[in-house]
Amino acid sequence: MISVAIVGGTGYTGVELIRLLASHPQVSVDLLTSRGQAGVRVDEVFPSLRGVSELVYQDMDEATFAALESSDVVFFATPHGVAMQHAKRLTDAGVKIVDLAADFRLQSLSAFESWYKHSHVCPELLKQAVYGLPEITRDQLKSASIVGNPGCYPTTAILGLKPVIECQNAQSKRLIEPKIIVDAKSGVSGAGRKAELGLNFAESADNFKAYGVTGHRHLPEIEQGVEQLLGSQFPHRIRFIPHLVPMIRGMFSTIHLSLTDAGTEINWQQQFEDCYASERFVDVLPAGQYPDTRSVRASNRLRIAVYQDSAHHELTVLVVQDNLVKGAAGQAVQSMNVMFGLDESLGLSHVPLVP
Amino acid sequence: MISVAIVGGTGYTGVELIRLLASHPQVSVDLLTSRGQAGVRVDEVFPSLRGVSELVYQDMDEATFAALESSDVVFFATPHGVAMQHAKRLTDAGVKIVDLAADFRLQSLSAFESWYKHSHVCPELLKQAVYGLPEITRDQLKSASIVGNPGCYPTTAILGLKPVIECQNAQSKRLIEPKIIVDAKSGVSGAGRKAELGLNFAESADNFKAYGVTGHRHLPEIEQGVEQLLGSQFPHRIRFIPHLVPMIRGMFSTIHLSLTDAGTEINWQQQFEDCYASERFVDVLPAGQYPDTRSVRASNRLRIAVYQDSAHHELTVLVVQDNLVKGAAGQAVQSMNVMFGLDESLGLSHVPLVP
Amino acid sequence: MISVAIVGGTGYTGVELIRLLASHPQVSVDLLTSRGQAGVRVDEVFPSLRGVSELVYQDMDEATFAALESSDVVFFATPHGVAMQHAKRLTDAGVKIVDLAADFRLQSLSAFESWYKHSHVCPELLKQAVYGLPEITRDQLKSASIVGNPGCYPTTAILGLKPVIECQNAQSKRLIEPKIIVDAKSGVSGAGRKAELGLNFAESADNFKAYGVTGHRHLPEIEQGVEQLLGSQFPHRIRFIPHLVPMIRGMFSTIHLSLTDAGTEINWQQQFEDCYASERFVDVLPAGQYPDTRSVRASNRLRIAVYQDSAHHELTVLVVQDNLVKGAAGQAVQSMNVMFGLDESLGLSHVPLVP
Amino acid sequence: MISVAIVGGTGYTGVELIRLLASHPQVSVDLLTSRGQAGVRVDEVFPSLRGVSELVYQDMDEATFAALESSDVVFFATPHGVAMQHAKRLTDAGVKIVDLAADFRLQSLSAFESWYKHSHVCPELLKQAVYGLPEITRDQLKSASIVGNPGCYPTTAILGLKPVIECQNAQSKRLIEPKIIVDAKSGVSGAGRKAELGLNFAESADNFKAYGVTGHRHLPEIEQGVEQLLGSQFPHRIRFIPHLVPMIRGMFSTIHLSLTDAGTEINWQQQFEDCYASERFVDVLPAGQYPDTRSVRASNRLRIAVYQDSAHHELTVLVVQDNLVKGAAGQAVQSMNVMFGLDESLGLSHVPLVP
Repeated sequence: MISVAIVGGTGYTGVELIRLLASHPQVSVDLLTSRGQAGVRVDEVFPSLRGVSELVYQDMDEATFAALESSDVVFFATPHGVAMQHAKRLTDAGVKIVDLAADFRLQSLSAFESWYKHSHVCPELLKQAVYGLPEITRDQLKSASIVGNPGCYPTTAILGLKPVIECQNAQSKRLIEPKIIVDAKSGVSGAGRKAELGLNFAESADNFKAYGVTGHRHLPEIEQGVEQLLGSQFPHRIRFIPHLVPMIRGMFSTIHLSLTDAGTEINWQQQFEDCYASERFVDVLPAGQYPDTRSVRASNRLRIAVYQDSAHHELTVLVVQDNLVKGAAGQAVQSMNVMFGLDESLGLSHVPLVP
Repeated sequence: MISVAIVGGTGYTGVELIRLLASHPQVSVDLLTSRGQAGVRVDEVFPSLRGVSELVYQDMDEATFAALESSDVVFFATPHGVAMQHAKRLTDAGVKIVDLAADFRLQSLSAFESWYKHSHVCPELLKQAVYGLPEITRDQLKSASIVGNPGCYPTTAILGLKPVIECQNAQSKRLIEPKIIVDAKSGVSGAGRKAELGLNFAESADNFKAYGVTGHRHLPEIEQGVEQLLGSQFPHRIRFIPHLVPMIRGMFSTIHLSLTDAGTEINWQQQFEDCYASERFVDVLPAGQYPDTRSVRASNRLRIAVYQDSAHHELTVLVVQDNLVKGAAGQAVQSMNVMFGLDESLGLSHVPLVP
Repeated sequence: MISVAIVGGTGYTGVELIRLLASHPQVSVDLLTSRGQAGVRVDEVFPSLRGVSELVYQDMDEATFAALESSDVVFFATPHGVAMQHAKRLTDAGVKIVDLAADFRLQSLSAFESWYKHSHVCPELLKQAVYGLPEITRDQLKSASIVGNPGCYPTTAILGLKPVIECQNAQSKRLIEPKIIVDAKSGVSGAGRKAELGLNFAESADNFKAYGVTGHRHLPEIEQGVEQLLGSQFPHRIRFIPHLVPMIRGMFSTIHLSLTDAGTEINWQQQFEDCYASERFVDVLPAGQYPDTRSVRASNRLRIAVYQDSAHHELTVLVVQDNLVKGAAGQAVQSMNVMFGLDESLGLSHVPLVP
Repeated sequence: MISVAIVGGTGYTGVELIRLLASHPQVSVDLLTSRGQAGVRVDEVFPSLRGVSELVYQDMDEATFAALESSDVVFFATPHGVAMQHAKRLTDAGVKIVDLAADFRLQSLSAFESWYKHSHVCPELLKQAVYGLPEITRDQLKSASIVGNPGCYPTTAILGLKPVIECQNAQSKRLIEPKIIVDAKSGVSGAGRKAELGLNFAESADNFKAYGVTGHRHLPEIEQGVEQLLGSQFPHRIRFIPHLVPMIRGMFSTIHLSLTDAGTEINWQQQFEDCYASERFVDVLPAGQYPDTRSVRASNRLRIAVYQDSAHHELTVLVVQDNLVKGAAGQAVQSMNVMFGLDESLGLSHVPLVP
């Protein structure tokens, strides 16, 4: 059994990791830490876990640290800035790390520091870190010791753009115009488990709004995805606007692309289907079928629909995922499976919850 | 024009007072106070009020206090314990007070102090205070200088029980058994405008729960209503259990009563209709029709349905209201109208919002 | 008093007209018709209207028709294709008509017939009809006898684009690129009051989806708005994608525009503020403030925010409205006020409902 | 592998059976039938099942019937009245039946026929049928060939009352008064997957109401549960009032009991804990902890809290479950496991979904 520890297990990604890993046949979750809830049983904080786990949250003291060092893998389900504090010591001890926050997502130090207002304490480890998007970085993940788990929005944007950028690269000519618009919508759980007036039910229910219009931390991550992960041969400008939807889980990205003349010649439905033919967590819907977020609720599936209007030089890509699964904890487990050479779907076979 | 001030105008009852009073032809809202938002325009905090009010929240300094003293009426839309601090000075200045918190609800000092964990600073004013439930205390309200605006749950319970207790008193014999069960359900706005984890959308949406099972502050208020306001000749025990419903506004109370043999002889539908025949804000539904909360949303209406099953000695009373209107701000305006000798429906003619 | 009749008063726009007109001091709603509910009181179908209206739905027989002919204005809150059946007879009788469906929206017969699959029975009346968007067609509305009330999405798109197209026209040069993307989101009430599986709460709550991706009837209406109403000197392509949000009321349109070099020179915030300075129902938010749909809930306000990123040649316009008010019934009342020479805000002074 | 067929697989209980059985290691779902969707793939109707099942709905023709006869077990996820049409032929062929509708719930023919307005076509099979509530009827289920799967409300009521009635029986004296009040609340999915105006999101969201006040089909089932399943030595009257909560899944029953003097002597917390100590799907919460529906969402758990107020002779039992799992499909799978001698938790190990 792989011994797993979760640092910061009181947030939504933490409890989701526990939910998913409970069905993983080769993993044992042995340690949970929390500053705020140290000494409290996890099933007191989350009565949903009664009968599932009897662990007690540990404070981050030396004994806990020693226990972390004897884990096989540590998931950081913490705010930004925590994982990097502990990464060196843990990797030195041979422990693998998956950070669900942003410490190891952006390869560019300056991008990290300007968007997150943190200086990075281990830039040398950042260089080794692998971006945990198995559909793109599977090979690197196999030998990774530190994984930066992608942000939720970037997962939808990068996977939604992958067939397009790859096709464009393959043809070495622009198939889409430089401007890429990602009009994205997220459920409220994406904001985390916290007391915040704007997240109060009476504030956010029966309501819809945009946020982060002037700049959102996931923008540089999407840019990195297009430029470095997908290695676009052509420069692109990403216009990213996130919105808040009165639903608990779910993320929907509407990607508006403009086709060049050459781009109108492509059968994009076919491109997308081919691109993801062997991926079990990415589902390209048949032509004419459009996704809704509940079709992936509580599962690690991400579904994509493509709508091509060559007459108007338009290509619209619709992407849905559960922001807490493929957009966070599920993807982290998927990366872990790759890191340990396991079947990628272990712990991730949940059928979406409908209704 | 009646000059109105609202102390603590950043909560839900505060903004609801502003909404209702904006349509009141004889009132001018001239002053808003807030500690946390002093100096900020009300329409920055509530963009819904852009074009409605340009007031700036005032801190509670001496200048503000002087302005309060020259108001005709001050609404306290504050937490418990604030209104009583200022009541003496304001009433001495001839200003009328409507407290939407609990400072002037409970006539019993000991009940107040044990349930609210405050000692009361002006017990002599408490004696003068009138409970602001016009359907019961209209006459006293006409000359009241301090009004304790009822709690939301007690409004439904007391008005739902009024025809029963009055009929029982009139007959001087028990028509219902001593035990009264009030199984009540409230929308989330009832908890106030605040950052609290349990109120987070992701915690409270798609969820239902009971709370306050071991005791809720509205219990002694319901008891007082039955015993003193309605003057029950017979003792009753109230069993009150509130629940939280994933909706913004709305309150639904299911009152379970057991009829005595004598009680089964009464035509309760008729009793309820007669009792409220001349009340414009209390609507007794025709026999066989059952209420939903949206039928009163955003309005000062309270609707009641009665279901009598004499064969089983059962009487069920269903009561709905908008917790922020008839359950709070609307009722406060209604009482104010009575206090100033105005038509009771001024500022309260909003048609319920459906859908 | 202006005598009003509402044909098809059992849908959401019908009941919303009743709600709004109940507060209109110069109007009396005297007649409601419904085929399905003929003979039934309106307050049985909508208990929210108990105490507001005692009207009984009339079938569309000859007596009803005679009564319609003696009305001053008839609102058609019916499906497409109904108003045009009756328009000739009513206008011959001197009755004004406001159609909330699409019969008199599109001036192009061929557009109407291809999008709505109806042949138009009174194309000569269509030519006289005025598109009921007072912020643009106020002058024509003053003498209109038939008004085509705009669709909900087109209202947000056309008013959101008005300052841009007008400025571009004024300068006689392209300020924005031809492609206009309207990524729009609507609450569920926009689909109407009907039994439909996809609208079932268990299907649409906690869910988000796009629809009409391959073409939506509001597209030709937005195009007509840009080309004819706003008289754009330059051709534009509208890419319109609507989405369904799990909320009852509210509409949010995110309009993505690309600025030309000349366009980056404009201070768009100023343009928008100037454009709507004298409009009481269109509110341009201060720079840096972004709207949410609840800030207009239950009111006739439409709010707009503009975000300009000249470095990237981007202009983003965010528009919110209540789809049933400014997007339907409220706008119809506003047009009626213009038609009858009344103050435009009569019956429309409702403060938005927050929370 | 046990070969499973699901008749009527297009409703919520049908799709939930598929979701649960997909994780059952000893079961293969081989056949789905549907009249309305015959010939359509299940994953077209439910895109959530893409990658999970490629079955095509079969019409109920002779070939299908032959296939049903070669199944090991047939689940009827149909409306009332269907299972009994086919029960004889299938049981004659040695096929086990689990009916998720009401055909085999009520042992009393007259109760069935008066509440369901059907005459029963196989009363002789009804006598053999076992009520599928394993916590009570486990022994009978082991050899059952026809199982009537309990209604959702009765599951909460009967399991919530089991420790009380059993204790009362054990002591052979009344511990609670005859009147039992079940004030129950259900999510909207309980009404089924159907197009119905009252279930429209715009009708049921942000709303709360009672229904079935004058009588609900689950009442005789609860009565049967108390009298026959639990074998109460004392007569009881059940007062059952269901309410509709604006949430997708979840059921909450508040059971109000009055204790006799003898009843106040009992430590009910202990009684409940002892009663369910060995049940893995029934969780008695520690004293002072109260349940919410999301703590069981998407899982087969049912949680119970007990609140005892001996001073007032009151006992309150709070029960939560997911109405589609323990209240329907999960319970059906649990019974199937018992019928086939399998570990009762196979296919039912889903951790509740929070948030």
